Amino acid sequence: MSAQEGQILVGQKSVMNYVLATVIQFHQGAKRVVIKARGRAISKAVDTAEIVRTRFLKDQVDIADVKIDSEVVGEPGKQRTVSTIEIVLEKKEE
Amino acid sequence: MSAQEGQILVGQKSVMNYVLATVIQFHQGAKRVVIKARGRAISKAVDTAEIVRTRFLKDQVDIADVKIDSEVVGEPGKQRTVSTIEIVLEKKEE
Repeated sequence: MSAQEGQILVGQKSVMNYVLATVIQFHQGAKRVVIKARGRAISKAVDTAEIVRTRFLKDQVDIADVKIDSEVVGEPGKQRTVSTIEIVLEKKEE
Repeated sequence: MSAQEGQILVGQKSVMNYVLATVIQFHQGAKRVVIKARGRAISKAVDTAEIVRTRFLKDQVDIADVKIDSEVVGEPGKQRTVSTIEIVLEKKEE
């Protein structure tokens, strides 16, 4: 991961935690921040990206890409498949 | 909406309802099915797309596009912004 690219893993905390963590990464010079989540946190990852894009960094960042996929998690014998999302926020050219 | 394109709105029912509704649309001849959701149902929409892609129609459909956005809902005075997702599943060329 280059210093120009940040990463946020969305989990159980409130959405504003992840919003602020994303904003901080852009303020520290990141050109792109990848917001990742699995399972039920996926909705929160989308909220995080949208709140950053429409409010905190309005007109300053774009959604460059959204990818969904599946991942197998858990110990052998207790494995299950969960959905994943990766949302790439990118600073607009000035 | 052309007869070749189906649409599934993911809401409060269990994920398997939406999986089967999607599979049925492909079996009825749809080339593309757009899976849409808002708010908390977004995670379920991603699950729907992934279960169709990796299990029910494995190797038969691709995720052609994923878009996220925001929408204002509710009556005047009680309006709030919700995140939305649109996932486009597309039949692979044979």
